[in-house]
Amino acid sequence: MIKAAVLGATGYAGIELVRLLTSHPEVSIEILGSHSFVGQKISDVYKNFNHVLEKECEELDLDKVGACDVAFTALPHGASKSVIPSLLEKGLKVIDLSGDYRYDDVAVYEKWYGEKHSSPELLKESVYGLPELHRDKIKNARLIGNPGCYTTCSILGTVPLLANKIAETKNIIVDAKSGVTGAGRGLKLQNSFCECTENMKAYKVATHRHTSEIEQELSNVAGEEIMISFTPHLIPQKRGILSTIYVNLNRKSSAEELTEMYKEFYKDEFFVRVKEVGDLPETKHVAGSNFVDIGVCYDERLQRAVVVSSLDNIVKGAAGQAVQNMNLLFGLDEKTALTNPGFYL
Amino acid sequence: MIKAAVLGATGYAGIELVRLLTSHPEVSIEILGSHSFVGQKISDVYKNFNHVLEKECEELDLDKVGACDVAFTALPHGASKSVIPSLLEKGLKVIDLSGDYRYDDVAVYEKWYGEKHSSPELLKESVYGLPELHRDKIKNARLIGNPGCYTTCSILGTVPLLANKIAETKNIIVDAKSGVTGAGRGLKLQNSFCECTENMKAYKVATHRHTSEIEQELSNVAGEEIMISFTPHLIPQKRGILSTIYVNLNRKSSAEELTEMYKEFYKDEFFVRVKEVGDLPETKHVAGSNFVDIGVCYDERLQRAVVVSSLDNIVKGAAGQAVQNMNLLFGLDEKTALTNPGFYL
Amino acid sequence: MIKAAVLGATGYAGIELVRLLTSHPEVSIEILGSHSFVGQKISDVYKNFNHVLEKECEELDLDKVGACDVAFTALPHGASKSVIPSLLEKGLKVIDLSGDYRYDDVAVYEKWYGEKHSSPELLKESVYGLPELHRDKIKNARLIGNPGCYTTCSILGTVPLLANKIAETKNIIVDAKSGVTGAGRGLKLQNSFCECTENMKAYKVATHRHTSEIEQELSNVAGEEIMISFTPHLIPQKRGILSTIYVNLNRKSSAEELTEMYKEFYKDEFFVRVKEVGDLPETKHVAGSNFVDIGVCYDERLQRAVVVSSLDNIVKGAAGQAVQNMNLLFGLDEKTALTNPGFYL
Amino acid sequence: MIKAAVLGATGYAGIELVRLLTSHPEVSIEILGSHSFVGQKISDVYKNFNHVLEKECEELDLDKVGACDVAFTALPHGASKSVIPSLLEKGLKVIDLSGDYRYDDVAVYEKWYGEKHSSPELLKESVYGLPELHRDKIKNARLIGNPGCYTTCSILGTVPLLANKIAETKNIIVDAKSGVTGAGRGLKLQNSFCECTENMKAYKVATHRHTSEIEQELSNVAGEEIMISFTPHLIPQKRGILSTIYVNLNRKSSAEELTEMYKEFYKDEFFVRVKEVGDLPETKHVAGSNFVDIGVCYDERLQRAVVVSSLDNIVKGAAGQAVQNMNLLFGLDEKTALTNPGFYL
Repeated sequence: MIKAAVLGATGYAGIELVRLLTSHPEVSIEILGSHSFVGQKISDVYKNFNHVLEKECEELDLDKVGACDVAFTALPHGASKSVIPSLLEKGLKVIDLSGDYRYDDVAVYEKWYGEKHSSPELLKESVYGLPELHRDKIKNARLIGNPGCYTTCSILGTVPLLANKIAETKNIIVDAKSGVTGAGRGLKLQNSFCECTENMKAYKVATHRHTSEIEQELSNVAGEEIMISFTPHLIPQKRGILSTIYVNLNRKSSAEELTEMYKEFYKDEFFVRVKEVGDLPETKHVAGSNFVDIGVCYDERLQRAVVVSSLDNIVKGAAGQAVQNMNLLFGLDEKTALTNPGFYL
Repeated sequence: MIKAAVLGATGYAGIELVRLLTSHPEVSIEILGSHSFVGQKISDVYKNFNHVLEKECEELDLDKVGACDVAFTALPHGASKSVIPSLLEKGLKVIDLSGDYRYDDVAVYEKWYGEKHSSPELLKESVYGLPELHRDKIKNARLIGNPGCYTTCSILGTVPLLANKIAETKNIIVDAKSGVTGAGRGLKLQNSFCECTENMKAYKVATHRHTSEIEQELSNVAGEEIMISFTPHLIPQKRGILSTIYVNLNRKSSAEELTEMYKEFYKDEFFVRVKEVGDLPETKHVAGSNFVDIGVCYDERLQRAVVVSSLDNIVKGAAGQAVQNMNLLFGLDEKTALTNPGFYL
Repeated sequence: MIKAAVLGATGYAGIELVRLLTSHPEVSIEILGSHSFVGQKISDVYKNFNHVLEKECEELDLDKVGACDVAFTALPHGASKSVIPSLLEKGLKVIDLSGDYRYDDVAVYEKWYGEKHSSPELLKESVYGLPELHRDKIKNARLIGNPGCYTTCSILGTVPLLANKIAETKNIIVDAKSGVTGAGRGLKLQNSFCECTENMKAYKVATHRHTSEIEQELSNVAGEEIMISFTPHLIPQKRGILSTIYVNLNRKSSAEELTEMYKEFYKDEFFVRVKEVGDLPETKHVAGSNFVDIGVCYDERLQRAVVVSSLDNIVKGAAGQAVQNMNLLFGLDEKTALTNPGFYL
Repeated sequence: MIKAAVLGATGYAGIELVRLLTSHPEVSIEILGSHSFVGQKISDVYKNFNHVLEKECEELDLDKVGACDVAFTALPHGASKSVIPSLLEKGLKVIDLSGDYRYDDVAVYEKWYGEKHSSPELLKESVYGLPELHRDKIKNARLIGNPGCYTTCSILGTVPLLANKIAETKNIIVDAKSGVTGAGRGLKLQNSFCECTENMKAYKVATHRHTSEIEQELSNVAGEEIMISFTPHLIPQKRGILSTIYVNLNRKSSAEELTEMYKEFYKDEFFVRVKEVGDLPETKHVAGSNFVDIGVCYDERLQRAVVVSSLDNIVKGAAGQAVQNMNLLFGLDEKTALTNPGFYL
């Protein structure tokens, strides 16, 4: 059994990790780290866990965590950085859900996050944990920078066009919509029920940090520097991201050709489901599961692809992808504990 | 492997059964019966099943179903009755999710359903599939009348008071609230999003059929005929039932005593979670799981117990309970495929 | 023009008052009191008011308020008490939305609120602002204790049975369900979108303060002391209360007779709409309006009336009722600014 | 008093018209036309109207309608065309909420609607009812083609950039999100509560008819033919449209300059509210009102404007705009009956 520590277990990404790991046949959850709920049972914080997992939350104790095989760090921004080097020293594999270890270039991190990086040498070693693009590197990594939710959705929806050199690399626009779990569990008036329900809005237009993560991966695939417009929106539902991606093409094409291109690109990927021509993703098809659904349209008048991609922000956009990465790190079947079809209802 | 047929697989109870059975290690889904979607893949009707279960829906073929070990009948009211005798003849165990085989007394059925029962002799044989009350009978049954959603919630919330002879049997009132999946997938204006959201209402006051089911089980436990007020309400959420139950007591008591009484009564029941004094159920604690949560309050001024019970109407109130019954019928651990903690988010 | 001050203008009841008063032809809003948003325009706090009302919020200045004709106090519990005597001294009429001036008997207040009342002499003078029961007294009052939301809904749904002496006064049960605006605008995790949506629950079972308010009014009508079970529930929608009321009757009756009784009792009440037999209220019929809808059922088996009443908790249950009271206090048509049909959508 | 007929009064746009007109001081609603609900009172179809408007719905009778001054036609697509010429002959002003009379060029209509236009001569006469662009023509028109919901939102969000010649006319992308009332009241599984809630999706990518309406108006302002990408999305809320608009600029600019440009362009428009720099629209700010809110951002890296505009699809996007047009047609203050701040809650 893989001994796992979940640090930051009581946030939304953390508790989703716990949910997924409780049904993982090869994992034993050893530590539930939670600064805010030390001494409380996880089943008192999230009462759906009564009779299933009634373990107590603990303050971080590096020695105790040191006895584990893997740590998932779902900590507030900044907190991950201060803990992870110690965990690595103790020989753990670390899957970090923050933005701290997702960058190839420390300068990009420091520009978008507005602060110095505290362990740039680890940034060099860390692997961007998007299995569909970096599976081999992930298998041999010690430290995974688990991708963001908007990021995973937007990158996987775009790369086949770049890899096939049919995209114009200018004027790529990603208009993304997210459910409210993406905002986390922290108390904010804007996230209260009466303010949120029956409301939608855009936020952080042209300034959201995930822009840089998307650009990094798209640029790597394209072999040239790509800059995009990325606009996040908040939608009155709990789970789900839907990205609508506009890409001008450098030649005429068709929905059929483009769909075929995507199907070919993802033909070995269990978690990527390319829709048939004329069919489009909906967030309820992916809610609760680790799947990414992608539908590809072609606007003949404008010689432009319009791609719609969708995933569950706290599964494939956070906890599920982290489990997928863990499976790879430990030589397990990548799909272990991740084959459920989601909720629909 | 148990070969299973799900008849009526594309309704909401049916598809939840399919969801649960896909993760059941001892079951192979052989047949997905659906009159409306014959020839379509289940994964085209419920697209969350892509890459997980892509089996085609079929018209009912008794010979083919005859090769299975168990049939779940989640058919429209009336349809179950016409199919089930044939299935039993072919040697299957049958778990029926309709109201047809839930009654001890055919007269009660005929009064509340307003029609003749077509196979009263089977009604005598069928077992009311509430494991917490009838586990031993279920194990040896051929035909299970799987209880309704309101019913399971209301019965389990009330019986400890009756079994302990502390309840006055008059003036029992069950005020129940249900999410909209309870209304099924059929097209009705009143169930459209714009009519349903931001709306609640009572319906079928004093006339809902589940009243008779609740009364039957409560009367059996009490050893005398009990009549209750049962009022169902529709609430703007998908899953979940919450029943608030008012029972006058025949002597003074306390929340502590009553809670202890419930804990004792359900001490061997994995799926019943009795809350500590002062804690109350919420539907999000049970959504997606097979648990029933029960909180017990005592109104000292009125010498009255107020009990709140909650479950997921399409899991413990339908599909999950059906799987629990199947596990019992086939000698498996009753909890198999039912130990997940639900969604919370 | 009536010069009005709204103290506590930025809470949910307060802003609904502002919404209603902006369309009142006889009122000029002179003061928007808000401790938290001093110096900000109301249209920056609630941006729907841009181009409509762009007045600044102010700290409480008794001299300035003293120049008004009426003050609506929608202040946090306790704060009302400390301000109101001064306002009355300055000659204003005061409509208080808190619980402080709703009681005939100071002992009842002190028992349910757990504290001394700071101005019991005013409690003697204040009038319970439910126009359907106390219209004449309201017209001549200086200080109105504007009824609570659950209270208005429950009282109006019950009194015709008591007034007509057909109710048994024991075993009256009020099971009430409220939207989330009832919890106010304060920050609480339990009111955040991800915790609230797709969730329902009961709370403060047998201990909610509104119980005592309901009992006071029912007892007055019945001419004897009445104690009830009152259970509030939180439902995932913004506006609306639905009360389901169970009352044993002292003789046989029928839905027709009871409905006629209600129609007769409320025949001169514009804001009470008694449903035809077989028709029941829904919160969306009253959302955004000052109406109370009431449907009356009769359970022949149990000789019990089941009454369903519904209103918008922040209109007829707070701000609208306050405007109705103001209209009465100033000799206006009671319906002024309150005749809109609500939103439905 | 202006005698008004609302034809198609029981659809969502129709009933919103009725809601607005009941508070219009210069309008008397003479006729409520509804094929489906003939003989029923509007207050039985939409029960929020009890005690407010209890008029019966009628089958279309041209002679009776002929006695009115104005007809609002909120009829299913195609039905408008067959009625409107007769109404005009009888001397009525007509405000048509369908797409039939919104086009300058019959060929554009016939291409996007896939059918012959039955009265192309009227199309020449009809005026596109967007007061902010065509106020003078509207005042003197007989027939108004009342703009679509997506259209109004998208056009008003874009034209200042074109009018100021700062926009590149290629690569304009409008990503629009709509609440579910936009889909109307017709029965469709995809619009049922359980399918809609917690779900979002794109639809009719690159093929939605409103594309052509937006292009027509943008081309007129730009003085050259403009083609855009327009993608509609369905969001789980009732009311509200939010359009996110991407426009490359032909020179460097700033959020301040662009915001100033919008403020100047709309300086005389009561119903257009341009946000300060850094502030963005939300649908709850416009729900229930006739306002359009617009926020303007500038992406320096890409020399691109990102504009967010928002309105209530059944008010400014349908019924409210129709009333605004009626006010203009009859020489009233354009704002009559339209100055309320909306719901927020």
